[in-house]
Amino acid sequence: MSQQFDVLVIGGGPGGYVAAIRAAQLGFKTACCESNPYADPKGEPRLGGTCLNVGCIPSKALLHTSHLFEEAGHAFEAQGISVGTPKIDVAKMITRKAGIVDQLTGGIKGLFKKNKITLLNGHGSFVGQVDEGWQVKVGEEVVTARQVIVATGSSARHLPGIPVDNKIVCDNVGALDLDAVPKRLAVIGAGVIGLEMGSVWRRLGADVTVLEAMPEFLAAADQDVAKEAHKVFARQGLKIHLGVTIGEVKLGKKGVVIAYKDKDGADQKLEADRLIVSVGRVPNTEGLNAEAVGLKITERGMIEVDGHCRTNLPGVWAVGDVVRGPMLAHKAMEEGVMVAELMAGQAGHCNFDTIPWVIYTSPEIAWVGKTEQQLKAEGVAYKAGKIPFLANGRALGMGEPTGFVKMLADASTDRILGVHIIGANASELISEAVVAMEFAGCSEDLARICHAHPTLSEVVHEAALACDKRPLHF
Amino acid sequence: MSQQFDVLVIGGGPGGYVAAIRAAQLGFKTACCESNPYADPKGEPRLGGTCLNVGCIPSKALLHTSHLFEEAGHAFEAQGISVGTPKIDVAKMITRKAGIVDQLTGGIKGLFKKNKITLLNGHGSFVGQVDEGWQVKVGEEVVTARQVIVATGSSARHLPGIPVDNKIVCDNVGALDLDAVPKRLAVIGAGVIGLEMGSVWRRLGADVTVLEAMPEFLAAADQDVAKEAHKVFARQGLKIHLGVTIGEVKLGKKGVVIAYKDKDGADQKLEADRLIVSVGRVPNTEGLNAEAVGLKITERGMIEVDGHCRTNLPGVWAVGDVVRGPMLAHKAMEEGVMVAELMAGQAGHCNFDTIPWVIYTSPEIAWVGKTEQQLKAEGVAYKAGKIPFLANGRALGMGEPTGFVKMLADASTDRILGVHIIGANASELISEAVVAMEFAGCSEDLARICHAHPTLSEVVHEAALACDKRPLHF
Repeated sequence: MSQQFDVLVIGGGPGGYVAAIRAAQLGFKTACCESNPYADPKGEPRLGGTCLNVGCIPSKALLHTSHLFEEAGHAFEAQGISVGTPKIDVAKMITRKAGIVDQLTGGIKGLFKKNKITLLNGHGSFVGQVDEGWQVKVGEEVVTARQVIVATGSSARHLPGIPVDNKIVCDNVGALDLDAVPKRLAVIGAGVIGLEMGSVWRRLGADVTVLEAMPEFLAAADQDVAKEAHKVFARQGLKIHLGVTIGEVKLGKKGVVIAYKDKDGADQKLEADRLIVSVGRVPNTEGLNAEAVGLKITERGMIEVDGHCRTNLPGVWAVGDVVRGPMLAHKAMEEGVMVAELMAGQAGHCNFDTIPWVIYTSPEIAWVGKTEQQLKAEGVAYKAGKIPFLANGRALGMGEPTGFVKMLADASTDRILGVHIIGANASELISEAVVAMEFAGCSEDLARICHAHPTLSEVVHEAALACDKRPLHF
Repeated sequence: MSQQFDVLVIGGGPGGYVAAIRAAQLGFKTACCESNPYADPKGEPRLGGTCLNVGCIPSKALLHTSHLFEEAGHAFEAQGISVGTPKIDVAKMITRKAGIVDQLTGGIKGLFKKNKITLLNGHGSFVGQVDEGWQVKVGEEVVTARQVIVATGSSARHLPGIPVDNKIVCDNVGALDLDAVPKRLAVIGAGVIGLEMGSVWRRLGADVTVLEAMPEFLAAADQDVAKEAHKVFARQGLKIHLGVTIGEVKLGKKGVVIAYKDKDGADQKLEADRLIVSVGRVPNTEGLNAEAVGLKITERGMIEVDGHCRTNLPGVWAVGDVVRGPMLAHKAMEEGVMVAELMAGQAGHCNFDTIPWVIYTSPEIAWVGKTEQQLKAEGVAYKAGKIPFLANGRALGMGEPTGFVKMLADASTDRILGVHIIGANASELISEAVVAMEFAGCSEDLARICHAHPTLSEVVHEAALACDKRPLHF
């Protein structure tokens, strides 16, 4: 007889493993299957998905190392530290990164054990419905579960005619594993991954050119932030070309030649030793055998769900990158928790309006809520407070005076509608803004809350004061 | 006729200059006098007080430089970055620090101009009361003001028989200006300043011994945090001796010999090239001529005030280090704003229960609210959630796995009573806890708020989940 579970989670990434842990905490007999796309020396399923194996975590390790490398080369002297010309051992940097990934994927396996979750090795594929629930084939075995959570994630979108070998032409996987600093690196797509990976290799010495099809830079971000980011990244040496149309990409043994039209329609050619293709991600629904059970998939290839991650099938849920909404690990985790709690009859809820966005460039970029251009488009009357880090003692002490905090609040109610940060540690500073917004806070609330001195968070405080035109330090 | 103001602020430190700016914003004709204790090349008053000139800001500049120096020497190799043996040019480091101080003190002067605040050069000293208000002598001039805010701050406490020359024997002023890294540095007092300054010079190569009279380390902090800090600082090479009694300190041309009894009462001797005395601070009330107007000063030398910073004299207020409460710049600023708003008939208020504390060692230490030992002493039933940074991907990426976040919440209402952090960026992480506590938030509130991944703030999130015994990542 097939194994019977209360809950089967298909996919062990951030949405899936968190859903499994929460379901197990709530008393469900839970299994999670993972098809192991990331080579494990023992052939065991590796948990953590794209995020942990070839995304957020390894990229942050490389961003940290390359940031230190750049500091050593450019910021030390002014502070009185002399070290000679820094050299990078790429293999060692990559090995350290791999160690962190191993530690964390192993950690999640430990959490599975602790929470008594059954880890199944294999891709999950729907078979049909029986009295006991949904039948799903995992590897050679068919298991049955009352409820199924699909958390299959996403994969890098590739460009037609440009095969990714993850040696010369890389997506996120190969971009994290280059064996040397390329002399010339081309990046197609100026999104989060393109900018982060472009920054890593530029800091280590690559001549980086970023080609972006959109005419605007970071169109999803507040345009004040995007403008500042564009200026700063250009000053750092990233060559960013917007509004381009990619033509033929010729692959040689040692590099690529990319033909493209620039924003004025003129033919251009870019030679590079390595190419990173970072033009978005596509939901993973292949191999699920969705059609066998009639699981609805949208035209854009996502599993169709409501605000509570319910699919069209009773007892089948879907969370994370495979459904609508931003492809962010913490959004997937929120959904995973919500679904587990809803299955247990609790009031699970996910507030999509307060999900923060982060880009881990230097300076970092983070925001939550509406951008100024969104408020304008929606005809919402708002007030804005914008304060630069240049006026902040901590930022000066750190040698990080770039950027600003911009707060947007409703013109009549003063409720905070959006907070946009470009600056050092923006990824951490955004959390107080998220908390304030979750409490339906006003700019005056943050203005009246004590902020430790000297901290970067004082700039958030001043931006709140500036919404009422009364900053103290600007 | 003497100059007449609505408001005179005595002292241009964080409490004073912020009070002056807020008063001016609210329409008061405002002056601020500063007696310029910090040498300015032009003999002009320097604004910003201890904090900006010889406290928070310059120490953070040195902490940053010395942290990078230590990273270069100890953390780079494991990341694949090779540099020669780092060397520190102390003069250059100090010059950079001085430049930051100049920029910020100049910035406050600019804010005074922008807000049309009259800056008076001289110490403020009460003369008497007339129909037009209080008369205060500033330098050679007597000015009159309807309302006076005393914000004279504090000075380093010295030890009897140990004269401070700020060359061999230093308080906070000299500790920030050593002309070279001492071979052997002694520190008397393991408080915030002693630990921060001890860390700076240890990182740069000094052999640092800290002598502390109290038997407990960091008695004001949560004892879990204090224990972890003690362990970590000792591992870093700070030699910390608790429960000592300082005896004679013999001063030679090139150093000091400190006789002390250790915690077991045995006689000990410590030779050092430099000594930092950091045994607390005393309120500055001398020279105020308080007795001329009958301004009440407590036995402990502080100006007596109520919760709204009112003194015993109508129209005379006092804020910051010169009154009760923690000697923290941001507490002084909060009081400054409150007083200005109360003078304007607004509902000024200062919540002393949500003032964060920070120690800028590495790892940083920050907390807000009650410690576990306070809750025990008060008989409050509580629950605790404690999560290490070791389980956090961002912390591993940064190579900063040390420390933890500990949250304390009321056992029955779940209201957050205290949050205690030791770890990288604790100074910034604490702000979301302060915001949550100001909204009277529960641990469940923070547990249900989305935290960006991967960030250190996720450890705050997990600590909140752990209050309900359901952490996801631990």
